[in-house]
Amino acid sequence: MKDPIAFRAACDEARRSGATVGFVPTMGALHSGHLALVAEAKRKASFIVVSIFVNPTQFGPNEDFVHYPRDFVGDLQKLTDQGVDLVFAPEPSAMYPEGEQTRVKVHRLTDPLCGAFRPGHFEGVTTIVAKLFALSGPAVVVFGKKDYQQLAVLRKMVRDLFFPIDLIGHPIVREADGLAMSSRNVYLSADERARALGLSRGLRAAWSAFEGGERRTETLRALALREVHAVADRIDYVDVVDPVDLMPPGERIDGGGAGAKALVAIACHIGKTRLIDNVVLGEDPVPGAAVTS
Amino acid sequence: MKDPIAFRAACDEARRSGATVGFVPTMGALHSGHLALVAEAKRKASFIVVSIFVNPTQFGPNEDFVHYPRDFVGDLQKLTDQGVDLVFAPEPSAMYPEGEQTRVKVHRLTDPLCGAFRPGHFEGVTTIVAKLFALSGPAVVVFGKKDYQQLAVLRKMVRDLFFPIDLIGHPIVREADGLAMSSRNVYLSADERARALGLSRGLRAAWSAFEGGERRTETLRALALREVHAVADRIDYVDVVDPVDLMPPGERIDGGGAGAKALVAIACHIGKTRLIDNVVLGEDPVPGAAVTS
Repeated sequence: MKDPIAFRAACDEARRSGATVGFVPTMGALHSGHLALVAEAKRKASFIVVSIFVNPTQFGPNEDFVHYPRDFVGDLQKLTDQGVDLVFAPEPSAMYPEGEQTRVKVHRLTDPLCGAFRPGHFEGVTTIVAKLFALSGPAVVVFGKKDYQQLAVLRKMVRDLFFPIDLIGHPIVREADGLAMSSRNVYLSADERARALGLSRGLRAAWSAFEGGERRTETLRALALREVHAVADRIDYVDVVDPVDLMPPGERIDGGGAGAKALVAIACHIGKTRLIDNVVLGEDPVPGAAVTS
Repeated sequence: MKDPIAFRAACDEARRSGATVGFVPTMGALHSGHLALVAEAKRKASFIVVSIFVNPTQFGPNEDFVHYPRDFVGDLQKLTDQGVDLVFAPEPSAMYPEGEQTRVKVHRLTDPLCGAFRPGHFEGVTTIVAKLFALSGPAVVVFGKKDYQQLAVLRKMVRDLFFPIDLIGHPIVREADGLAMSSRNVYLSADERARALGLSRGLRAAWSAFEGGERRTETLRALALREVHAVADRIDYVDVVDPVDLMPPGERIDGGGAGAKALVAIACHIGKTRLIDNVVLGEDPVPGAAVTS
């Protein structure tokens, strides 16, 4: 379905007949990570809606909007197989008609990490997601945790604007060797694919040290950075931050106390492909295969 | 009712029982203009909700947030007399809890007129209205046309973000002598109250000239400006603009053709009070009493 108004009508009709709308927004080129989000939505809601929309406003002028992977026919097949009730795949001109000029912006949370390297990215994300929420009226929405900052920013938007939505973050889905699933992985050559394992290896190094009692922020960061540095062509960031406000935690992630949590987040370029990955120390299980290095 | 979540629950309950929610957002200090909005909402919806909230984010640092007129007891009585079903009067800390950081912004439409003199004002308006819409889930919302630009900006937000809301603009309600009703009119001394008639007099001068066939933008503007200039202590603007995009219409408001419309909009200070007024030439009836000057 391409028309926003027909999409709204279908969601309205489902709600009127007593269904709970569960919504999974995607940019298509679906992989097992996306399908896990759909499965989670099915556990929480009775009418499952997936949008496929490569949102132009969240790409910078030098980013890969034009070359972002698209596989609409394959996507539709996967979603049909999963028993999705409705797929919404609008044209950009329908979501951003001529003369549109409204933007939704979350401020502080969008400053660090990817926000520092992709100006305007999160404003594009929050704007399109607010539009999709208004059209679909979902009770439940599922996003993946691979875009950890995106999830945090959207949680903030939902809370700040009082959207009546249960926003669920789904754990990162990984390949058997630890690589976080991403539509952009198809860009990787065989050599790049092998090097890309440095991201999850770095996360595991920090995770293992944390499990062993390490709480020094810079030490945990250095463990992840070493692995990423060994494989990346360019590093945007390897950061250890507070998982809630995404701010630096100080010298120790527990401030000297117990029960510490910290987000280790990575963004780097392997060849021409930008990859991200993360783990929340003190919360997530080991990110991928057991540590072997 | 003060609690946002209880407010949402009451609106949800009304909808579940088959009612159509009609919403009138106000800043309180209610006058007959507000009550006309309520009456209009009652014609279009079955469960009428009024919010009373002096929204801090739409006031500049040197504006009258602290001294904005407040009369909660009187307001409640008027709304009860009108048969309003639910009054929502939250604390600022409930609408802007600590750590909130999301803003909704309409861009180009907020640049001219009041936007040029009140930086951030409309961002405050669109943000609070988006929050109130999310809480109340109205099918119908009524705003007055006295804040013409506010109505235009909110229409743009509703359209751009696909809010499923019928936004109704209600004609300006005036005192018998032509003064547009405003909560801020209580600030006016007797002398200032008399001088304030210059605004509607200026609009009538432009209106009468338009009705007589005048289409030159600068001539229409000068007619309004002369009256405002005679009474105002400071003029923010007296402008003639396109009623849809609020941009300058060129030398003639009909571009040489027929069927022209133009917004004549005024913002000026009488004593310490900032007043606004407007008329849409080619659309609105004569603004106030017949022209006598």
